[in-house]
Amino acid sequence: MTSVDSFVSQHRDRLLEELFELLRIPSVSTLPEHKEDVRRAAELVAKRLGEVGLENVEIIPTDRHPLIYADWLHSPGKPTVLCYGHYDVQPADPLELWTTPPFEPTIRNGNIYARGAVDDKGQMYMHIKALEALRAVHGAFPLNIKVLIEGEEEVGGASIAKYVLENKEKLKADVALVSDTSLYEPGLPTLCVGLRGLVYMEVSADGPGQDLHSGSYGGAAPNAVYGLIELLAKAKDADGRIQIPGIYDDVAGPAPAELASWKALPFDEQGFLRTEVGGECLTGEPDRMVLERVWSRPTFEVHGIGGGFTGMGSKTVIPAKAVAKVSMRLVPDQDPDKVVAAFRAWVAANTPKGIRTEVRVLGAGPAVVVNPDHPAIDVAARAFKEVFGRDTVFIRAGGSVPIVGDFAKHLGIPTVMMGLGLPDDALHSPNEKFCLENYYTGIRTVAHFLEQYGRA
Amino acid sequence: MTSVDSFVSQHRDRLLEELFELLRIPSVSTLPEHKEDVRRAAELVAKRLGEVGLENVEIIPTDRHPLIYADWLHSPGKPTVLCYGHYDVQPADPLELWTTPPFEPTIRNGNIYARGAVDDKGQMYMHIKALEALRAVHGAFPLNIKVLIEGEEEVGGASIAKYVLENKEKLKADVALVSDTSLYEPGLPTLCVGLRGLVYMEVSADGPGQDLHSGSYGGAAPNAVYGLIELLAKAKDADGRIQIPGIYDDVAGPAPAELASWKALPFDEQGFLRTEVGGECLTGEPDRMVLERVWSRPTFEVHGIGGGFTGMGSKTVIPAKAVAKVSMRLVPDQDPDKVVAAFRAWVAANTPKGIRTEVRVLGAGPAVVVNPDHPAIDVAARAFKEVFGRDTVFIRAGGSVPIVGDFAKHLGIPTVMMGLGLPDDALHSPNEKFCLENYYTGIRTVAHFLEQYGRA
Repeated sequence: MTSVDSFVSQHRDRLLEELFELLRIPSVSTLPEHKEDVRRAAELVAKRLGEVGLENVEIIPTDRHPLIYADWLHSPGKPTVLCYGHYDVQPADPLELWTTPPFEPTIRNGNIYARGAVDDKGQMYMHIKALEALRAVHGAFPLNIKVLIEGEEEVGGASIAKYVLENKEKLKADVALVSDTSLYEPGLPTLCVGLRGLVYMEVSADGPGQDLHSGSYGGAAPNAVYGLIELLAKAKDADGRIQIPGIYDDVAGPAPAELASWKALPFDEQGFLRTEVGGECLTGEPDRMVLERVWSRPTFEVHGIGGGFTGMGSKTVIPAKAVAKVSMRLVPDQDPDKVVAAFRAWVAANTPKGIRTEVRVLGAGPAVVVNPDHPAIDVAARAFKEVFGRDTVFIRAGGSVPIVGDFAKHLGIPTVMMGLGLPDDALHSPNEKFCLENYYTGIRTVAHFLEQYGRA
Repeated sequence: MTSVDSFVSQHRDRLLEELFELLRIPSVSTLPEHKEDVRRAAELVAKRLGEVGLENVEIIPTDRHPLIYADWLHSPGKPTVLCYGHYDVQPADPLELWTTPPFEPTIRNGNIYARGAVDDKGQMYMHIKALEALRAVHGAFPLNIKVLIEGEEEVGGASIAKYVLENKEKLKADVALVSDTSLYEPGLPTLCVGLRGLVYMEVSADGPGQDLHSGSYGGAAPNAVYGLIELLAKAKDADGRIQIPGIYDDVAGPAPAELASWKALPFDEQGFLRTEVGGECLTGEPDRMVLERVWSRPTFEVHGIGGGFTGMGSKTVIPAKAVAKVSMRLVPDQDPDKVVAAFRAWVAANTPKGIRTEVRVLGAGPAVVVNPDHPAIDVAARAFKEVFGRDTVFIRAGGSVPIVGDFAKHLGIPTVMMGLGLPDDALHSPNEKFCLENYYTGIRTVAHFLEQYGRA
């Protein structure tokens, strides 16, 4: 065997079939009825880690879904890389919008269609297969490896956060490697050096003591659904600027050089609208470029709302209860606790007459930025360039990978965010996909990075 | 047998058991899965009409749920009364809030608890049992009787509206009798001489082409749920005044004498809040008394809203779709078509950037007022006073009984609205009830009215 590249081309079919086996397990971490599926996915991943030569493979029980740990520490004097990924997925609903079933992975147009194809089973599995390739080529790993994989990324990641905090010595490493982001565009090697944070909350509203007849009481009784609507509508102005006092106080924008590099990136606003967003037009702060809005500006979103009668036909109730799921994406240097406090104060101040509201926090994590001058980032950029034949670009992502913040805070290490997704992969949506060639290229890129970082 | 009053006291148990049999049928007209139950309820009602001596009993098929017609026309020279009621009911959800199951009628604290107990099976059945009492006492009915009972009142009443329009001669009468309203307070004989109208609509909103990841797109993509929230929040100001242009243009308020009589009615605002509404405080136009707000002012309500993710836990989507059920209660002299047009224009003008909205009308009917000087109203007031021993008051109701408008428009007749409900009967809500004594008193009052109107 001469190279990891030829290893990958010789084992294409098996590498894909193994991924399909993992994608077929509906490991939806937020739904209690899938708890057993999540456990099955953990067991399969642990088995594969042992098969590629990792040692001390553990399935670590938690309060919710298990963690998986493994290592190989026989390269004294070489750096240690902590590989992270997650084997849990988002719910697949609405099911009727999927062309093929979400847990029956299917190849169409050169893509793997399945829930979790790109987020993050496919990308997590690239790491495992890169390790297999390295061992097959070199007979050993070129540096020290620690692997930590979780099953709660889509539900806030409470267990891994606790585990990292309590196992700093065990997890000690020089850098973390995470593949849960995207290429800026197909074929363009991309390292992500910034992520937004997130606070996710549930807001419930109570109006009358019970659902009331809108004929008998309409005009004099509070309406829980309307009260919640009135409240939430005040959160943003027509241009998408958040109206919660203090929310922009701590926002640190990108440095002029970083902003200039974003302006230099190819960006087709009409294409972005047509092929990714798919609506009438883009929205948001009109005085900022789209990349700035999604990478470096805080957001307020309502993810769902429910209350009253929404079945077939008509029912004339004044609803007693309503609930909404809301979140704010955070940017450097916003403090999640401060943002939650500001939101709570704003809700209290703006709850309409006759309505009682309650705010429940479901998850919170800060934004993260990585210094692009770190040696591992430099090696990663070169490995990427080598495989793709193009200069690597440095971008940010609008999403959150909370573990990257934990690695920085508790382990004091930066993270190489080497993601092989594409902007139109429909993460969290129906018809999620992962470009088949990016799966193979990702395995090669990860292997090249580890080879070269072992030599550095 | 000397009187209808003694007939009722001698047959209390059977009169109740017969009603229970009808209440046990879950004839929920809006839910397709109950279509067969609705039909069973129609068959039972038709059977009972024949048993009490009505002739020409017909179960009339329609596009949705059957109508029932019956008559007895052997009192030449006497007036003809058209008795109306409905045997369909509202959905019972949320089921978990019922103390006893909605379709297992139960007596507690002197009340019959069941879906449809008061709206309208219990009150419709008073008519049938009043006819039985009259026949038992007099051997015949004291005037001419036509009965028309529908199974679509809770879903807009399309079939009966069409039937009335197409059968004006068959349904010709001097007055209609409807028992689908409430006493102003327990023991106070009450005739309703005004009803609000209703336009009921569904508003749907589309944002992005599919649900999007709020990390990747948050800040630049439209959100269908938030767009619908922003739109609907503009419909009313903080005091509940509707902001849709032109909506108050045609509103005819009560005459000074009628308004004065409302002010003379006992009204305990704190009691109304505590025992009926059950929330923090009342809402609505602060410069108008509560009775004015619910009887003679238009409303805008959101009955339900749904969109995005509302399950357990968290899901970070930007929802592609959202839908809300909304209605406006109408007062004299608002024109439903004009109100719908004003609403459509307002939606079009206020739909936020990036959102497409659609309005679908599910039902529309105007407000109705009855002249209290009509002879039948006068006889009804006296019959009521006779049974209750107190002067009858004239009120309005905030709800809609669309058929009353159709009788006025197509048959040219007024309606005696002789309702025996109570203000806290929880119509359309969990734990709907009908005061047991009001059931018996209602049978007597209806019988007295028909006896005396036959003599008038």
